[in-house]
Amino acid sequence: METMANNVAIEKSKTSKIQDVDFDNLSFGSVYSDHMLVCDYKNGEWSAPKVVPYQPITLDPSAKIFHYGQSIFEGMKAYKDEAGKIWLFRPLENWKRLNKSAKRLAIPELPEAYFMDGLNALLQVESDWVPQNPGSSLYIRPFIFASGNGFHASPADEYKFIIACAPSGSYFSGKVKVLIEETYSRAANGGVGYAKAGGNYAGQFYPTQLAAEKGYQQVIWTDDNTHEFIEEAGAMNVFVRIGDTLLTAPTNDRILDGITRKSILDIANDEGIKTEVRKVSVHELVEAAKNGTLKEMFGAGTAAVISPIAGFGYHGEDYDLPELENSYASLLKKRITDIQYNRAEDKFGWRYEVAQ
Amino acid sequence: METMANNVAIEKSKTSKIQDVDFDNLSFGSVYSDHMLVCDYKNGEWSAPKVVPYQPITLDPSAKIFHYGQSIFEGMKAYKDEAGKIWLFRPLENWKRLNKSAKRLAIPELPEAYFMDGLNALLQVESDWVPQNPGSSLYIRPFIFASGNGFHASPADEYKFIIACAPSGSYFSGKVKVLIEETYSRAANGGVGYAKAGGNYAGQFYPTQLAAEKGYQQVIWTDDNTHEFIEEAGAMNVFVRIGDTLLTAPTNDRILDGITRKSILDIANDEGIKTEVRKVSVHELVEAAKNGTLKEMFGAGTAAVISPIAGFGYHGEDYDLPELENSYASLLKKRITDIQYNRAEDKFGWRYEVAQ
Repeated sequence: METMANNVAIEKSKTSKIQDVDFDNLSFGSVYSDHMLVCDYKNGEWSAPKVVPYQPITLDPSAKIFHYGQSIFEGMKAYKDEAGKIWLFRPLENWKRLNKSAKRLAIPELPEAYFMDGLNALLQVESDWVPQNPGSSLYIRPFIFASGNGFHASPADEYKFIIACAPSGSYFSGKVKVLIEETYSRAANGGVGYAKAGGNYAGQFYPTQLAAEKGYQQVIWTDDNTHEFIEEAGAMNVFVRIGDTLLTAPTNDRILDGITRKSILDIANDEGIKTEVRKVSVHELVEAAKNGTLKEMFGAGTAAVISPIAGFGYHGEDYDLPELENSYASLLKKRITDIQYNRAEDKFGWRYEVAQ
Repeated sequence: METMANNVAIEKSKTSKIQDVDFDNLSFGSVYSDHMLVCDYKNGEWSAPKVVPYQPITLDPSAKIFHYGQSIFEGMKAYKDEAGKIWLFRPLENWKRLNKSAKRLAIPELPEAYFMDGLNALLQVESDWVPQNPGSSLYIRPFIFASGNGFHASPADEYKFIIACAPSGSYFSGKVKVLIEETYSRAANGGVGYAKAGGNYAGQFYPTQLAAEKGYQQVIWTDDNTHEFIEEAGAMNVFVRIGDTLLTAPTNDRILDGITRKSILDIANDEGIKTEVRKVSVHELVEAAKNGTLKEMFGAGTAAVISPIAGFGYHGEDYDLPELENSYASLLKKRITDIQYNRAEDKFGWRYEVAQ
């Protein structure tokens, strides 16, 4: 039976899997909620989104997603506060970035109302799936892929926009050791590195495996031309603290315009921390590690929030970072998660309440 | 009912679509044959391939193909000669390159026997689908994608290898005008440009659309750092004739090691044509166009074989190429297709007969 919420048709699942889920021991993104949002692009337009039971997707073997990599995604989280209210963090930024990615991948852009109304309707239906346990949240995965058919190397004529949800614990556990990459690259000048395109991730797996064989959990990506400037940490933006200054690379066509990244910069400035958005060279990093001014490094992204780095490898040498009592990573993570979980004032206007 | 051929189990389709196909008016890659080959990777190994009726693929919404772009493919053709025998062209080269792509994309490599036995069995079953019309062939699309589930950005634990077939006419009709790209790029140093990875194609669509709006059918990709050297033409390798010398860029980690490309070089050398495999600058191209020594440009790849270029645009100027009576493009296309269709001696040992 269909009902409506936020202008979105809802087909409820007859059964729920929620009683099978151990909310005290959630991993990241491996258990999915009962419903998903689906919206199809056909005959030149997006149809109205629908909430339907979480279900398999059936495609022709010639669907272009299998052949030409036309796929983009976003990562978001829903947070439940102590009163049981559900919050999102800057959701319009995700919609805007999804459309930036869409444009670069020749995927039709999605109307704001379909994204926001669809998201609200889905979260109303899935409100019981938003965990209340500390550090847990409902990870939300909006994605669009080419469902149209054909072996001709050209954009598809049909697409699917889906939002699926996975109640999740934290992404990484503990600090990670990283390797500064000198051979492989993540993105080209004039390429798709700034987009959340599927292909950007597949290309990272093999270099990350090689780093793992050497004992590093993540790769610090450098520019593809000189490998002299640090750009991203695994699938996250990267921050460096030298002395008391917090540094991160400027966004460009190789670097993702991370929502956590820009929120961290705003919070740091609000805290009176000196920030510099500029190119950071590997040389500068190594010198700072040697002379003791390199105090912290961390990755920043929706999934991991802030992922502290224990040390880095470069040219066969390992450089350990100190243990700090009052790290920027801890301070900034507390400030941003306090906003996300509605535990503190939101002076930036980032929090978004999901109507229930 | 299952039968066996070449160690491959065969489940025949109960009906055939072949009577609906107009073999005199085939487009490229939009009609699919009755069967496909399927081979699954699970629990750390590839299972034996099977020929099954062409059918939809069903995947969980969390399947990694939708999120992280782990997909690779090959392009091949089966040719029918006048006697009705069916031929492949250097199929082992496709298997080798598939595995090179697999390694870079962190996809498990496929055993040679599964590829070759599977291909032979499928083509035996589909022999009626190989067109005999001049210029037509059965386009063969082997591909592997991540079918395992999970939102964690890491390689999948399950994959599908599929071979699908599409009786096809020629890919391009007529000469194309190309734009030398100065803003966008196809591949990074240390990236995945040399692999036939899905993501490499999705990234080309938008710049190609922008070029099309200016009246160019294809883009000539240049290096991402300086945009001074030509690398590929659309989804093909690119050749240039200056004076009587045939030039093409050396393969590297940004440029696909095309099977047509290297076959063209061998045939050209056999014809006594002077070839040079070296970097070709845009400056050199423009100068040669201005002084009249630029005689030909063409793309080379399996789908289009050889695709002649009528002229190129650069910095807002258009440079037309002359009409030649005895072009290298015509000569080389005739030589390679005569080998492919078993119309001429195969001194290189490239032809491969499919047992029937």
